[in-house]
Amino acid sequence: MNEIKIFSPATVANVACGFDVLGFCLDSVGDQMVIRKTDKKGIYITKIEGGFNLPYEAELNVAGVSALAMYEAIDVNFGFEIEIYKNIKPGSGIGSSAASAVGSVFGMNELIGKPFNKTQLTKFAIQGEALASKCEHADNLAPALFGGFTLVKSLVPLEILELPSPDAIFATIIHPQIEIKTSEARAILPKEVALSDAITQWANFGSLVHALHTSNYDLIQKSLHDVIVEPHRSKLIPHYNEIKTTALKAGALGCGISGSGPSIFSLCKGLKTANHVKNAIESLYAKTGIEFDMHVSKINVDGVKIID
Amino acid sequence: MNEIKIFSPATVANVACGFDVLGFCLDSVGDQMVIRKTDKKGIYITKIEGGFNLPYEAELNVAGVSALAMYEAIDVNFGFEIEIYKNIKPGSGIGSSAASAVGSVFGMNELIGKPFNKTQLTKFAIQGEALASKCEHADNLAPALFGGFTLVKSLVPLEILELPSPDAIFATIIHPQIEIKTSEARAILPKEVALSDAITQWANFGSLVHALHTSNYDLIQKSLHDVIVEPHRSKLIPHYNEIKTTALKAGALGCGISGSGPSIFSLCKGLKTANHVKNAIESLYAKTGIEFDMHVSKINVDGVKIID
Repeated sequence: MNEIKIFSPATVANVACGFDVLGFCLDSVGDQMVIRKTDKKGIYITKIEGGFNLPYEAELNVAGVSALAMYEAIDVNFGFEIEIYKNIKPGSGIGSSAASAVGSVFGMNELIGKPFNKTQLTKFAIQGEALASKCEHADNLAPALFGGFTLVKSLVPLEILELPSPDAIFATIIHPQIEIKTSEARAILPKEVALSDAITQWANFGSLVHALHTSNYDLIQKSLHDVIVEPHRSKLIPHYNEIKTTALKAGALGCGISGSGPSIFSLCKGLKTANHVKNAIESLYAKTGIEFDMHVSKINVDGVKIID
Repeated sequence: MNEIKIFSPATVANVACGFDVLGFCLDSVGDQMVIRKTDKKGIYITKIEGGFNLPYEAELNVAGVSALAMYEAIDVNFGFEIEIYKNIKPGSGIGSSAASAVGSVFGMNELIGKPFNKTQLTKFAIQGEALASKCEHADNLAPALFGGFTLVKSLVPLEILELPSPDAIFATIIHPQIEIKTSEARAILPKEVALSDAITQWANFGSLVHALHTSNYDLIQKSLHDVIVEPHRSKLIPHYNEIKTTALKAGALGCGISGSGPSIFSLCKGLKTANHVKNAIESLYAKTGIEFDMHVSKINVDGVKIID
């Protein structure tokens, strides 16, 4: 096999009470990439479609940097070409850079007989992700690679836990097309938090993990609260509180900021409710004059995968 | 049935990363209590054995206060006598007051045909616990009533989750016979904590909940860390760090402060390791000149129960 075409999914990180450690994988939104062996040694980005003005130089491109990290770890007498068909908008907060970082290393690994497991692939992808976000983190990479809900227990050593995904869970995403600077989203977070809030957060997070294991939708609903980060970052997203109120009123189990925003996710029981939430948010946001995209997706339990 | 004899178990609260929300129930340590219907209306403590100088006046006694809370909620033309055979030393940090608070309401409920479920009984017991600890909390009450590992997701509304207990888990407890004032154990805690530490704590706690669900002993070991409370409260317990090092070296999965101390718990895989940890700690602590008790126990998955 000399060429492979893959789907590299969008992902939601943080997920309310799981700030910095939890993520889940989407099914209906993602990039496509073609990875191809080539006689010439090295990593070459040969095509980028989607119109996001991403760089072709491998060492300046997220997919290129993760590919280079993996390429340095293998000993082969050929190289790889990468074509990127970008659907996930950079800066949307649903793991655009993670999808690129994951896609190239997943594809290369498939072409050379899968010498690396998914945790090892995550380590290479972290290098690419760091180019985009200026820090090493894996909360989008892990769900993109493993699928489902993932808990990044620790970065050093890298430890990723695969949590169960209850069958009926669907996500509704709104991406208001505004720019949130990562630096601003970070600066707005307090360095210290009240111990009482931290306790509330880990009670909710432990409870959410239990709820995922027991497919307890009521408990998912009761657990999807973020008392630490949302009060700060929600200020950066126009009409955040109205969207959240609308989503919950329309039946969402919970609603929160995807990554560091501006996208907002809702988790819902059943496709019908997810679509209902989408329609309700759409009606609301259409009045704001701000451009936006919406997605409804089941949880993608496979993660990045070969297509065609 | 006019009389019932019960075993009301000792419990470990906090459990490293689960500060203020997690607890588990012991099997080999606990109080016995006899609850008896009596013609005279009201709650009467008629016997206290064990020599801890506890008050007989119902409204000053933990078991009496929780019994009174329940008695006010029922309409009966008789009263209850309570005999307490105390084995759990007050102030030991393994839920002595919780055992008393739970025992009386559990026993009374059995005698009147169980009109209340365990969550409702917890609410009555919280009144008794508050007499002893000057604040309302349920992290010892919940495991004493439900057994196994419990997560108190919230106090208002009271929401208790029963987590799975992997079969091979045993606990080793050392109770150094020193007094730690609850007020001091509380005052030593910071009101604010670093966000980065809080994230580590909830990553560990979520991971521990996942590990309990998957009987993953390796992951239990990796998750039993407390970066928030232990650094402060361990200073109040003589030789804490040596005990912990000894326990881990002897094979414990993890080790931490039980409640607010002075007892220290270790969780172990298998009875043999739990006994090995006991012997190792015993040899160490015998040299300190401080009196101490030790207990080895499997996890009690039933909680408080009828005996004889």
